[in-house]
Amino acid sequence: MTGTMYLIGTGPGDPELLTLKAARLLAKVPVIAYPATENQGAMALEIARRHINPNAKLIPVSLPMRLDRAPAQAAYDIGARAIQLQLDAGCDVAYLCEGDPLFYGSAMYLLDRIDAPVAVVPGITSLTAAAAAIVRPLAARNETLKILPAPLPDERLKAELGTTPAAAIIKVGRHFDRIRGLLEATGHAQNAVVVEFATGQNQRITKLSDFAHDTRPYFSIILCSAGEEAWSKS
Amino acid sequence: MTGTMYLIGTGPGDPELLTLKAARLLAKVPVIAYPATENQGAMALEIARRHINPNAKLIPVSLPMRLDRAPAQAAYDIGARAIQLQLDAGCDVAYLCEGDPLFYGSAMYLLDRIDAPVAVVPGITSLTAAAAAIVRPLAARNETLKILPAPLPDERLKAELGTTPAAAIIKVGRHFDRIRGLLEATGHAQNAVVVEFATGQNQRITKLSDFAHDTRPYFSIILCSAGEEAWSKS
Repeated sequence: MTGTMYLIGTGPGDPELLTLKAARLLAKVPVIAYPATENQGAMALEIARRHINPNAKLIPVSLPMRLDRAPAQAAYDIGARAIQLQLDAGCDVAYLCEGDPLFYGSAMYLLDRIDAPVAVVPGITSLTAAAAAIVRPLAARNETLKILPAPLPDERLKAELGTTPAAAIIKVGRHFDRIRGLLEATGHAQNAVVVEFATGQNQRITKLSDFAHDTRPYFSIILCSAGEEAWSKS
Repeated sequence: MTGTMYLIGTGPGDPELLTLKAARLLAKVPVIAYPATENQGAMALEIARRHINPNAKLIPVSLPMRLDRAPAQAAYDIGARAIQLQLDAGCDVAYLCEGDPLFYGSAMYLLDRIDAPVAVVPGITSLTAAAAAIVRPLAARNETLKILPAPLPDERLKAELGTTPAAAIIKVGRHFDRIRGLLEATGHAQNAVVVEFATGQNQRITKLSDFAHDTRPYFSIILCSAGEEAWSKS
């Protein structure tokens, strides 16, 4: 009997934002796999650690922090092989995913390489966590809400931002200055808020207009949600 | 001392998808308020019920299921008054919200009428729950993801759908036939999936192309996420 592969969302940072289902599964699954990078360590593991069966076997999937894809592909190959061995031996395996496994997660690259029954436990995303931190709706009524990765080209971002009252910019990092300019150009800058490390111990909330010009936010999301009426008047 | 007003996301339907934080707070907060409608009952209360302090005072906020806003405004006025009395007496109050409180929720209408410290506990959205149910990424890498309420005008929806590989259509209801047509017109129909009652006992998953033409989905979300490459070839 092949084991089941669980993709488990650990939520954005606060260990109390795991779901009851995630906590129950982590307490009993005998094998826990998790992504680990040189720079950032193993954030999903840190979030979930207190709930993990102390006798569980741990399998780190060591991911290179580089933009080219070949080394990452090789890392997923190696990780998937170690996980498949456990599944083939009849053990269930949980793969920990920061936030939600299917919201811009990398778990699918692993899943593509696994041959086993799969179940996904959704997690709290950084999106809703950031909104909770600033107590402001992401979107309401019949507003569109766009999730926009910062690496997209300027023209694309400008077009998307220009036609929505509500947006969330993810993967900001080194694109911060460029994004700030685009938000200014599309009427979003005034109400935009930068949320770093949402719900984590280092959580920091800064209005975009107050964000220092020579710095860059970390593990951040920028929320733009003026509300349809306020925005259309801007 | 004024009490604290907690907005608590109960998640999409499965009671195990409450967060540990939500469960902890619900076990101790002395007053629980929740939305109730004639047609749909009190879904958030049903989801959270087993975690609520059995001695808690319950305050239903009875919402009319109508499109005009005045009756709803009056309902929030009445609900907010009952809640404010408790807060003024120094009691913490938790207001239960299906899914996440700030993702197209109605909690903000209540919050606008409350004068007290506020804390938000994010919840699992129907968006990520639906993706988990079909084990398919909502979006990956640098794809845009658009959340589009079905009541938006055709031209608007068509423009938005025409420029994204990944979208989720919410508030489908009576707009279903129109939405199906728009998804067909924008190359999204082939990979679109209708998820009803995500993670709930009545969960049903149907490919859009298999959905019976004379019926309408309930409590549903339509996920369109072919992947950037597949979609741009369509």
